[in-house]
Amino acid sequence: MKKISIIGIGPGGYEDMTIRAVRAIKECDVIAGYTLYLSLIMDLIGDKETVCTQMRGEVERCRRALALAESGKHVGLISSGDAGIYGMAGLMLTLLADHPDIDSEVIPGVSACQSGGALLGAPLSHDFAVISLSDLLTPIELIEKRLSAAAEADLAIVLYNPGSHKRSDYLKKACDIILGYRSADTVCGLTRNISRDDQSHQIVSLSELREMTVDMTTTVFIGNSQTTVTGGHIVTPRGYRL
Amino acid sequence: MKKISIIGIGPGGYEDMTIRAVRAIKECDVIAGYTLYLSLIMDLIGDKETVCTQMRGEVERCRRALALAESGKHVGLISSGDAGIYGMAGLMLTLLADHPDIDSEVIPGVSACQSGGALLGAPLSHDFAVISLSDLLTPIELIEKRLSAAAEADLAIVLYNPGSHKRSDYLKKACDIILGYRSADTVCGLTRNISRDDQSHQIVSLSELREMTVDMTTTVFIGNSQTTVTGGHIVTPRGYRL
Repeated sequence: MKKISIIGIGPGGYEDMTIRAVRAIKECDVIAGYTLYLSLIMDLIGDKETVCTQMRGEVERCRRALALAESGKHVGLISSGDAGIYGMAGLMLTLLADHPDIDSEVIPGVSACQSGGALLGAPLSHDFAVISLSDLLTPIELIEKRLSAAAEADLAIVLYNPGSHKRSDYLKKACDIILGYRSADTVCGLTRNISRDDQSHQIVSLSELREMTVDMTTTVFIGNSQTTVTGGHIVTPRGYRL
Repeated sequence: MKKISIIGIGPGGYEDMTIRAVRAIKECDVIAGYTLYLSLIMDLIGDKETVCTQMRGEVERCRRALALAESGKHVGLISSGDAGIYGMAGLMLTLLADHPDIDSEVIPGVSACQSGGALLGAPLSHDFAVISLSDLLTPIELIEKRLSAAAEADLAIVLYNPGSHKRSDYLKKACDIILGYRSADTVCGLTRNISRDDQSHQIVSLSELREMTVDMTTTVFIGNSQTTVTGGHIVTPRGYRL
């Protein structure tokens, strides 16, 4: 069977995978993915053939998945979170366009904005924007324009890839842009290492967020002007009359 | 056990539920939800006690869940999609703030932007905004401001609640706003009745989208300026060099 299933496995724990993702992994002949993500689902993979590539090896990983599918195998390409949100689906489908004989499917999963949001409460219960601070593949000017627009329109904002060693001041710059439109006491949240043993979450103000240290395991939430902390949870209200 | 689990069940089919959501439903004493959503998971609910309320009965539903939890029960409050994205989590957590003796948890699930996005390909593989066109609880001026901002900043856009009988021209108005910033041939997509027998999806241009009829089961996707149709799928590229 020439097929590639592009599978979002959620934050990493078995509990947050969908039934469809678990079944697909079991059905595949070969599992391809970034080494760290494969290690999270080793119990499901069992003794299946695997293709591991390192971070930033995305194009190579997809090409190897294609070659295996062309040889008649059903390949499961693993993406953390949702395969369609900063995941492998876009790149894999682009390369698949030259291989119409290979069947494909995209299996959605719980993304960090959802698993992190659930830990914090309900920060995304109204309109929101999802923006990555990584300028590896996106001009920084476009990222800044999107941050300004989302802040001005009072959208709640989720920041993916908020920082790394090379981009230690990006979160501070993002907060400065947002502070141009939103008050310093805007309710914000951070989640780290979701679904791992050292998972944590924290509620801070926008001015406090500006001073925080973040890394690639952090997801950042910035409330809109109506977002509150209630009962220890972040809630962005929809407007129900109580 | 005084507890409320706020459970996102995804688009409605068993396959797209998370392991955690299935387990929680099995563990609860009582299941509360909108009648239609409970009907989708009757096999899981079995002969458990249920509390069904109609559409727009959200506040009453939460108050009944609270009363049941106060009586010592573990209540599962069902939300379609993700409980934190236009779901029940925000309202329920707000009401729970006055009941610190009741334990709670939010269980995320696959939202329509993800299940619909996976059907269409990968329309949300780069930064995006999620905006509801329902003005039941939100001033229409704020919705329009958010549409303008997202369009100007070249964010991909997902529209929830794009239309109903009373709001038959809202999608047209939204397209007109977006057409002020984005070309008429911008790649767009629609999904209908996701995970039901009559599930469908369609790829259209922004000018064609303007003329479409939509209802409450439709989710609308508007690509950014780089979004393409490739191999029959919508792909919003992240910028990988191939």
